[in-house]
Amino acid sequence: MAEHTQPIGLDGAKARVIVAGATGYAGALAANLVWNHPALELVEITSRSETGTALNELYPRYGVPLELKELDLAGLENVDVGIVAYPHGAAAPVVAGMRGLGMIVVDLSADFRLDDLPTYEKFYGAHSDPDLLDGAVYGLPELNRADVIDAELIANPGCYPTAAILALAPLAEAGLIDDVVIDAKSGVSGAGRGGGEGTSFVTVTENVAPYKPAGHRHRPEILEKLNKVSPDGAGIDSMTFVPHMVPVDQGELVSCYVKVREEISQDALEALYEARYGGERFVTLRKTPPGMRDVRGTNECHIMPLVGDDRVVVFAVIDNLWKGASSQAIQNLNLMLGLDEGVGIS
Amino acid sequence: MAEHTQPIGLDGAKARVIVAGATGYAGALAANLVWNHPALELVEITSRSETGTALNELYPRYGVPLELKELDLAGLENVDVGIVAYPHGAAAPVVAGMRGLGMIVVDLSADFRLDDLPTYEKFYGAHSDPDLLDGAVYGLPELNRADVIDAELIANPGCYPTAAILALAPLAEAGLIDDVVIDAKSGVSGAGRGGGEGTSFVTVTENVAPYKPAGHRHRPEILEKLNKVSPDGAGIDSMTFVPHMVPVDQGELVSCYVKVREEISQDALEALYEARYGGERFVTLRKTPPGMRDVRGTNECHIMPLVGDDRVVVFAVIDNLWKGASSQAIQNLNLMLGLDEGVGIS
Amino acid sequence: MAEHTQPIGLDGAKARVIVAGATGYAGALAANLVWNHPALELVEITSRSETGTALNELYPRYGVPLELKELDLAGLENVDVGIVAYPHGAAAPVVAGMRGLGMIVVDLSADFRLDDLPTYEKFYGAHSDPDLLDGAVYGLPELNRADVIDAELIANPGCYPTAAILALAPLAEAGLIDDVVIDAKSGVSGAGRGGGEGTSFVTVTENVAPYKPAGHRHRPEILEKLNKVSPDGAGIDSMTFVPHMVPVDQGELVSCYVKVREEISQDALEALYEARYGGERFVTLRKTPPGMRDVRGTNECHIMPLVGDDRVVVFAVIDNLWKGASSQAIQNLNLMLGLDEGVGIS
Amino acid sequence: MAEHTQPIGLDGAKARVIVAGATGYAGALAANLVWNHPALELVEITSRSETGTALNELYPRYGVPLELKELDLAGLENVDVGIVAYPHGAAAPVVAGMRGLGMIVVDLSADFRLDDLPTYEKFYGAHSDPDLLDGAVYGLPELNRADVIDAELIANPGCYPTAAILALAPLAEAGLIDDVVIDAKSGVSGAGRGGGEGTSFVTVTENVAPYKPAGHRHRPEILEKLNKVSPDGAGIDSMTFVPHMVPVDQGELVSCYVKVREEISQDALEALYEARYGGERFVTLRKTPPGMRDVRGTNECHIMPLVGDDRVVVFAVIDNLWKGASSQAIQNLNLMLGLDEGVGIS
Repeated sequence: MAEHTQPIGLDGAKARVIVAGATGYAGALAANLVWNHPALELVEITSRSETGTALNELYPRYGVPLELKELDLAGLENVDVGIVAYPHGAAAPVVAGMRGLGMIVVDLSADFRLDDLPTYEKFYGAHSDPDLLDGAVYGLPELNRADVIDAELIANPGCYPTAAILALAPLAEAGLIDDVVIDAKSGVSGAGRGGGEGTSFVTVTENVAPYKPAGHRHRPEILEKLNKVSPDGAGIDSMTFVPHMVPVDQGELVSCYVKVREEISQDALEALYEARYGGERFVTLRKTPPGMRDVRGTNECHIMPLVGDDRVVVFAVIDNLWKGASSQAIQNLNLMLGLDEGVGIS
Repeated sequence: MAEHTQPIGLDGAKARVIVAGATGYAGALAANLVWNHPALELVEITSRSETGTALNELYPRYGVPLELKELDLAGLENVDVGIVAYPHGAAAPVVAGMRGLGMIVVDLSADFRLDDLPTYEKFYGAHSDPDLLDGAVYGLPELNRADVIDAELIANPGCYPTAAILALAPLAEAGLIDDVVIDAKSGVSGAGRGGGEGTSFVTVTENVAPYKPAGHRHRPEILEKLNKVSPDGAGIDSMTFVPHMVPVDQGELVSCYVKVREEISQDALEALYEARYGGERFVTLRKTPPGMRDVRGTNECHIMPLVGDDRVVVFAVIDNLWKGASSQAIQNLNLMLGLDEGVGIS
Repeated sequence: MAEHTQPIGLDGAKARVIVAGATGYAGALAANLVWNHPALELVEITSRSETGTALNELYPRYGVPLELKELDLAGLENVDVGIVAYPHGAAAPVVAGMRGLGMIVVDLSADFRLDDLPTYEKFYGAHSDPDLLDGAVYGLPELNRADVIDAELIANPGCYPTAAILALAPLAEAGLIDDVVIDAKSGVSGAGRGGGEGTSFVTVTENVAPYKPAGHRHRPEILEKLNKVSPDGAGIDSMTFVPHMVPVDQGELVSCYVKVREEISQDALEALYEARYGGERFVTLRKTPPGMRDVRGTNECHIMPLVGDDRVVVFAVIDNLWKGASSQAIQNLNLMLGLDEGVGIS
Repeated sequence: MAEHTQPIGLDGAKARVIVAGATGYAGALAANLVWNHPALELVEITSRSETGTALNELYPRYGVPLELKELDLAGLENVDVGIVAYPHGAAAPVVAGMRGLGMIVVDLSADFRLDDLPTYEKFYGAHSDPDLLDGAVYGLPELNRADVIDAELIANPGCYPTAAILALAPLAEAGLIDDVVIDAKSGVSGAGRGGGEGTSFVTVTENVAPYKPAGHRHRPEILEKLNKVSPDGAGIDSMTFVPHMVPVDQGELVSCYVKVREEISQDALEALYEARYGGERFVTLRKTPPGMRDVRGTNECHIMPLVGDDRVVVFAVIDNLWKGASSQAIQNLNLMLGLDEGVGIS
């Protein structure tokens, strides 16, 4: 697979892709995006619970007629790419198996997101394949595109870190964040399929509530990635992260409240963000408050930085299933395969 | 009206009430609560735009068959109480007229909420009757019940200050708030009737967005009231307040992130809130995250204080139309009339 | 229990009530209504799955602090009333046990709704206690109040039959219904708690879909009850009933399209309904289209009869959890106990 | 414009398109579809109320940066195509002007949908340009594709007729419909932008209600089109059409209840629909009940025919803004321009 950065697809040969775990919301959308992608061929979709069913029976709005099978690593010899949408912990062994076959892999779980193994194990339990952590690349192209291009294993970030890191990266890179409160609002699909009473319509409609208001496992991930891009000695001193569930299907809004190390004007703040994101096709800088609907069903992130009352305030919206999961997986895959970054997700 | 604190209603004579501005959401609910109240008699409802219509045609879910009339102060000689649900600025002259007749008044607008006239005029424009400010009492019974009982003019707080002040008062009174971020989420009815495209279903559904992210006029109100109860020299140094609209009809959640002046344990924090609110029938202290639905259609406020990551976090939920407007108006009125505080709203 | 029609409560002695199956939506609401009822005492609530939990932990919006227990018929000697909110089939043995103790019972399941045993067994399976069918009374007070008053076992109708029968009874009693199409729309709570992926927010929001479009088990129930009140030889020839799930928590709308046996004018149609329902406090006749919201959280039914294009059209709305289940149970119980029909549900 | 059926776009020359009335929901979506269409060039967008604003300020989720202008027919000499999204009555003169310039036109209003002028004038008022009616083609490609291909003026059907006619055409063409009840459920966007209190979130959420339950103007349109394809003497005898508003943004479901002239088996019914629609790429025949979500944001129509209780029942779902308005306009335009029917909308 050394040639994986060659422009597969341009010579007519499509990269052959398996989506493992295609019955969950993120896996099913990933399968649909691959199915409609001009340079990818969806050769197999698997499920641990719904084998024998066609995906378009479960998701009539997606046109994928393939039947869900049980995962059989032995049958993947001619498959180039694995997209793994398994729960945390269950993903690592599957990823390891695919990597052993030389496949390139985009993993949607948390298993390879954290550089720091003790932090991982504190929040997720024992790791089955810690040796793979070193080669894994955090797949947020707007943060570290060069690494993504060279990667063979992508740890695809979830929705909260994607939105929060994109909102705060310019301030972090400038060493400006003293402390930050991140108040996040997520659509219900972020909780995954089969969520039980907690995600039933009756529970969620006409309701907004915080959950896991302390010790959420996405906090150390956001902190690690932002501090990695902060100047030495100018990392974040204090971070509070609280997620809320809102009666929305797909959508994610982070409202970030920053105490900055040095005062900054509105003009300078906008210039900082413009310099950072001016060339990013999937980031739009806004002068009006962004709403979840503005990016629904897209790979886009809309960001509004503002010198507010007593703080710098930054809002960012994404679609939690798209940029926060599946379309970002395709964006990463496009980069790894030497394709145009936006093909199949624009 | 010196006798207004006598228990009207206990001897069979009900207090006679007019609701001025009964077509908006808060006014219509106030009219309905008065209509069903055992010690109040709804003698008149007025409207500036829909005269001649019965209220139950506009609001079939309320059973009020009275016809909306134009307001005529000259005809109010035998009316004891005015509930005024006019827009800011338009309310003050009506309140002044009613007070001139000796009526007791609960005003749902902002016109008498702020002690500080320059702050009022900065955010709302010129004040037509500043001389009445002195006698007006801020109608948050859990904060200042004694004043409410003696009041003849109540400035009924809106939904954001009600929730935020109830969430933060115990910490403010203890002088513990150094800085605070208040991220507020409000149901759409908080924006009032006739809101146009911004409150249409198509705009709001599957959407969450901040609005007025800087300079919101409820910020100085929250700050003034909390600093009034803070110990000398231990007021709030920094406050950021950002409201968001969520796809919910009635409901309000404030998520408050506090840097405290001295570290506090979870036990001490709970004890502080328990000491403050243990005797309050409309406040429930929670150990699990409260949701908007938990208090829908009630005068209740559920509060959860928590020592979170790097901050104290306090959540409070109310129904923005009930405790955040109309049922709180009745609660205030009950107190002014010497009635049981909860009659008609429990 | 021969004295059960004596006005329990007026002498200060409240009827003692158990709610069996209080964790489902209907059972929990019934428990809450009993809890707040001036003439009833909630002495026990039971659950098959959540014993040991207090009801207000599961439903913070209800104020019932009692702990859920396992049902133990042996301990019910001093209990006067059983409200049973078990699934179909599971209810009958519990009802039989309670009846054996002399308790009066309101059963929210389908087990005693159908007079015709073969029809029951076709749609629900074998019946464990068919001998009790004879004494059971169908609990729709507006249809058969006299029977309800004398009953000791009430089969409480579900939401579809309640709305459909109330909509159509005047036409059926006049022998006017030749054929009828009933297109029903139900809120999600009608599907009960723990509905899985089919009732998750993600499935339901931004969606409307029919379900069970043929052979729904409520069709024979509606047909049986309407034909029972039709004149001899003027029953319904043809009935199509199709339910739809809509993205609403609580609410039920039936749109009924009737081919009448003889032409009728709008005036005569309204007169027919007025004559039938003029004295019913929980029925409101409307001249404008009723909406689900108009009756949310009430025991009311709003009905609009209309001579439409090529058919008579009748719309009826109820709250599926209130008039379609739990508040109607209380209405029935009030009647059985000789209380005012509306106490505790108005 | 005689050459308009030549494959514009294949030689690199895009057809130049104006969208007149681009601020409403349908016009804005049409503009966005043209903007992203590989063979069309969006050269101008107009508005009667919001000139000077860029479309992506009003609709951030659409990426159209063009500024809205006032319509000036004099400046359209080099424009090939007009898409007109004006209200009924206001559209006809604009269409006439564009046709006078030789432009081909797709009109989204009702002004050219009805063949029968007296029926039009009964429901919509006087017609300004009745002479254009003759050349107008009803733009439902699955019904009359050959006419669409040759058309220069398309009357684009609205959402109710599109769904109802697609649901019923196979039965009508077979002369099988004796009478039919059409119970239609529409998302709120069907009511258009600026709908006022009737379409506000507060009015619509947790609500379903019928509206215009008799004499709706789409009934004669559905009747005219279905009778046109019925065999002589086997037209529809009786039709009842009732629309309902549901708390959904985009979506449309029609539940059609048909008394058939001759009994038909489920197999024969499915065969009839399969024969009719087997070759249609935008029609999917379903064996399970279709939901609005299944077709959201697509040009598709999902149809389920069923031999139900006492009637044939047919369900059809579309997206009211896509197949019910704007993407169908593009589908028609593709056909008129000799392009592949699905380009830009698949």
